[in-house]
Amino acid sequence: MKLTVLGCYAATPRTLTNPTSQVLEVKNHMFLIDCGEGTQVQLRKHRIKFSRIKHIFISHLHGDHFFGLPGLVSTYRLLGRDKELHIYESKGIKEAITMLLKLGDSWTNYPLCFHELTSRDSELVFEDDKVSVQTIPLDHRVYTNGFLFKEKLAERKLNVEAVRYYEIDKAYYNNIKRGKDIVTEIGEIIPNKALTFDPPKPTSYAFCSDTAYNPDILPLIKEVDCLYHESTFLESEAHLAKKTKHATAKEAAKIAKEASVGKLILGHYSTRYTSIEVFKKEAFIEFDKVELANDGKVFEF
Amino acid sequence: MKLTVLGCYAATPRTLTNPTSQVLEVKNHMFLIDCGEGTQVQLRKHRIKFSRIKHIFISHLHGDHFFGLPGLVSTYRLLGRDKELHIYESKGIKEAITMLLKLGDSWTNYPLCFHELTSRDSELVFEDDKVSVQTIPLDHRVYTNGFLFKEKLAERKLNVEAVRYYEIDKAYYNNIKRGKDIVTEIGEIIPNKALTFDPPKPTSYAFCSDTAYNPDILPLIKEVDCLYHESTFLESEAHLAKKTKHATAKEAAKIAKEASVGKLILGHYSTRYTSIEVFKKEAFIEFDKVELANDGKVFEF
Repeated sequence: MKLTVLGCYAATPRTLTNPTSQVLEVKNHMFLIDCGEGTQVQLRKHRIKFSRIKHIFISHLHGDHFFGLPGLVSTYRLLGRDKELHIYESKGIKEAITMLLKLGDSWTNYPLCFHELTSRDSELVFEDDKVSVQTIPLDHRVYTNGFLFKEKLAERKLNVEAVRYYEIDKAYYNNIKRGKDIVTEIGEIIPNKALTFDPPKPTSYAFCSDTAYNPDILPLIKEVDCLYHESTFLESEAHLAKKTKHATAKEAAKIAKEASVGKLILGHYSTRYTSIEVFKKEAFIEFDKVELANDGKVFEF
Repeated sequence: MKLTVLGCYAATPRTLTNPTSQVLEVKNHMFLIDCGEGTQVQLRKHRIKFSRIKHIFISHLHGDHFFGLPGLVSTYRLLGRDKELHIYESKGIKEAITMLLKLGDSWTNYPLCFHELTSRDSELVFEDDKVSVQTIPLDHRVYTNGFLFKEKLAERKLNVEAVRYYEIDKAYYNNIKRGKDIVTEIGEIIPNKALTFDPPKPTSYAFCSDTAYNPDILPLIKEVDCLYHESTFLESEAHLAKKTKHATAKEAAKIAKEASVGKLILGHYSTRYTSIEVFKKEAFIEFDKVELANDGKVFEF
């Protein structure tokens, strides 16, 4: 998976920082996650082809996570898009986007498909043969979902030497890759394990923003390869985190540790801090596989 | 007057150019005109104090002229604004902004006053003792208004030498500045012209975007000191201008010439042209007092 952070700062856009937006590349998909104001400019800046985005996941309806969406939706119209665009979002965006477009008498010329989320439990929102996306119910001031992106377990890998040794006809290869044993003409069973290697471990990514410290999500994000968890504040501002239902760097690290994730990426920093290194320092005490998101930064896992 | 162009390109924001937005400084006012996506970042970049803006004028409801408004309105809340904010706009924005803010459960904590425009005739929308703003009905695909900003004629300037010569008591100065003649104790009339100088000529600015070539606006913008007129296209794309109800550089210059304006500023360039100098070249044939808007450029008149 390749994650490009387009924006990872809390609250309002500033000259040099952007509100939340990310692009996750996985199995030929380009998933856009959140869409703060200026996202389309960030997409251009980082040379991400607009047309490759077919699915947009919006965590919640605070402006810094979706005020770039009307502009992006309009731009697709100007670019002559004809492919479907799917938007997964809290109930309400459909009405708002529809109204904004109607005001400008500029409805889209491509199919715009809204998938309104309302469940308080995790639900599967997208699935194809290679990847699935499910919601991670979060605890914020308004209805909020994180998203869990999971590759599916691939087919087993053919052990070319072994299938040659057993002189197995190519016609059986697909069955073997699906895990089937082989019965030879003389009735001998060759177990699948002798003919294949394990497929690569599927990769998973959990996006969790915005949220208060919420251990309820632990079963869902258990052992994900990479967790993006918001850390709007430091422990010194724990009272503000509590009041606004955000997390501190320490709390994000605790979640990462308890879920035994492969890597923690921090983000959604309050702009009150002059350096973001302090977030890493605080988190590191709890969990050492921690990295800092920053606008334009790319993570591969 | 001091005009700061925050963005002056048509259609979608790009890495280096911004959609329409301007700040006009006049008589201690900071008027924001249009508010494309990214306007708040542009305001910061050009060090314009957010808090000084109390009146926002929106020409029409195409995204490139107002998609930055929800973000700006939300930012004022985060900054703890308590002063009134007045928004003059086509009917519909009130409902849209209200809905967007309600979705995020984040209504403003300051008074947000919408002034919905519906008239097809020019109307006075703002006035105080020093300046007035009236609409300029334009001809575009949706209901659109330009705006005419006019300083009011100031009081006459006291001729200090003359009032001393006539030994006029200071108590009469205010009346003199308002244009009154003076009758001395012996009944002699001193005409006002002998006691004062003419006040400076009031300055005026007309903002006209987006619009097709529309000579109906000529009486309204007659002899303004500065006219901003859109020129989305060149004459070579006149068919597109006609189809989309935009103007060419030549048409903008014709309007400027016919209205005998002091200076023409071109803008709202289609991003199909690699250089904007071609707009000036085309306009110059009709009208030589022409300048090119560009993001960040400041004009004083």
